[in-house]
Amino acid sequence: MEAVILKGREVAERIRAEIAEEVLKLKRKGLTPTLAVVSVGDSPDTMSYIKGVEQTCNVTGVALKLKSFGEDIGREEFLSEFMNINDDPSINGIIVMQPLPSHIEMDEIRYLIKPEKDVDCISPVNLSKVFGGEEDGFMPCTAEAVMTILKFYGIELKGKEAVVIGRSMVIGRPVAMMLLKQDATVTICHSKTEDLPAVTRRADIVIAAVGRPNFVKGDFIKKGAVVIDVGINTLDGKLVGDVDFKDVLQKAGMITPVPGGVGSVTAGILLKHVIRASKL
Amino acid sequence: MEAVILKGREVAERIRAEIAEEVLKLKRKGLTPTLAVVSVGDSPDTMSYIKGVEQTCNVTGVALKLKSFGEDIGREEFLSEFMNINDDPSINGIIVMQPLPSHIEMDEIRYLIKPEKDVDCISPVNLSKVFGGEEDGFMPCTAEAVMTILKFYGIELKGKEAVVIGRSMVIGRPVAMMLLKQDATVTICHSKTEDLPAVTRRADIVIAAVGRPNFVKGDFIKKGAVVIDVGINTLDGKLVGDVDFKDVLQKAGMITPVPGGVGSVTAGILLKHVIRASKL
Repeated sequence: MEAVILKGREVAERIRAEIAEEVLKLKRKGLTPTLAVVSVGDSPDTMSYIKGVEQTCNVTGVALKLKSFGEDIGREEFLSEFMNINDDPSINGIIVMQPLPSHIEMDEIRYLIKPEKDVDCISPVNLSKVFGGEEDGFMPCTAEAVMTILKFYGIELKGKEAVVIGRSMVIGRPVAMMLLKQDATVTICHSKTEDLPAVTRRADIVIAAVGRPNFVKGDFIKKGAVVIDVGINTLDGKLVGDVDFKDVLQKAGMITPVPGGVGSVTAGILLKHVIRASKL
Repeated sequence: MEAVILKGREVAERIRAEIAEEVLKLKRKGLTPTLAVVSVGDSPDTMSYIKGVEQTCNVTGVALKLKSFGEDIGREEFLSEFMNINDDPSINGIIVMQPLPSHIEMDEIRYLIKPEKDVDCISPVNLSKVFGGEEDGFMPCTAEAVMTILKFYGIELKGKEAVVIGRSMVIGRPVAMMLLKQDATVTICHSKTEDLPAVTRRADIVIAAVGRPNFVKGDFIKKGAVVIDVGINTLDGKLVGDVDFKDVLQKAGMITPVPGGVGSVTAGILLKHVIRASKL
């Protein structure tokens, strides 16, 4: 029996509808929730991300301010521009696109960004809240997208074995803490794990966030497990996840596709955060 | 064959010797590393903790300022006293004893304490560094004591299965992140974990931080595993750990005792942090 496909797009539609409703209410009060996307340079990844956010802004009514700078902008000048955006009362949420050129330190921006505008969770204040399981901060959007899909499809986490492959600060570590908050037993594994398939085979829920195309095979998965694929890789000009979809489809109980899975939910989460930020 | 006993006291002696040497060097430069212990009320736990720190200060030469307040101190007054301590240039490190009375919020102090004086890691800045595996902040002392014992006794972590029982912000979560930083495969389990003994039996290294006397039994442990007992409980007037020592001794390869294990190292780590803080 093939796995049930967990359609991120259905989740995204629901979120967009909720946001649109909230935006209407806020606009009636004279408030337009506004997101600033800060980028330096024009890498294809940044451009495609901005395009996705732009579309979601369009359908929901959230205002978007693109703050794009050339790669040749100096550190001082960039920081001064950033502080203007940070202090601008008409801007409710800020996301800073990575990577930044080497002369601008993301680490510096982490400490400057106002936690109440930090809608993608780079500030130490928001990160420490994710770490501690406090839910009044902003969580990293992709990690929250994973949790939102699990919740949308009614997947029980309490007492279950969840295995996260990958330990990045944008997905692996935060999603592990969020699963822990939901009372799952959580294992984090990675490139140095001995016998990774043996570890992932223990899981009721697998979160793949390794950044390697088709890395997770059918024999990594316990029969009937839920598999969430966070990967976005390009292989032979095609978008593929970290999970070998065809292979795992025969083994898993439920699986998210790529595209149309986690990635399609992320922009909605970001705008949900902007709505919340605009109420702060 | 009985397990090798990992003597925390040997580790503590080494650390104290290192600190004493550093203090001498700093004093020659006219600097006396100074720790402030802030406490409200006089619970027996607080008193016994302070006594331990006092002894370690005495043998190492670190200066100690006890800032003890009565339970009846008002919120405003306490915060004002706290800010004086925080701003006092003669104080290098600050530790705030828990619990505080209910009218004083630890959460408020977290955001006030200067990260560079926060030697027991309550500030979001230091917590987010532990979360991200950045090593230039201060880590929670007990969690670092665990890691220090593992290192002292040459226990390999890379690629190994480590299981942490407990998910508190002072031990469980931070020690999990520190084990991850050392390339262990890390599982966090807790009261909601289904079949906990089955999970801990997978571990090459078990960290017990549950706060329940003699909770971990021999059948929780894989033959030859390393067992680190973080528990400090009182049972029938005796100090006991979270691990049933006699039972686990027959099964584990190495084990820390209580007393004389992790607890005996913690004060040394705290003072190491004070030394580092005094150099900042």
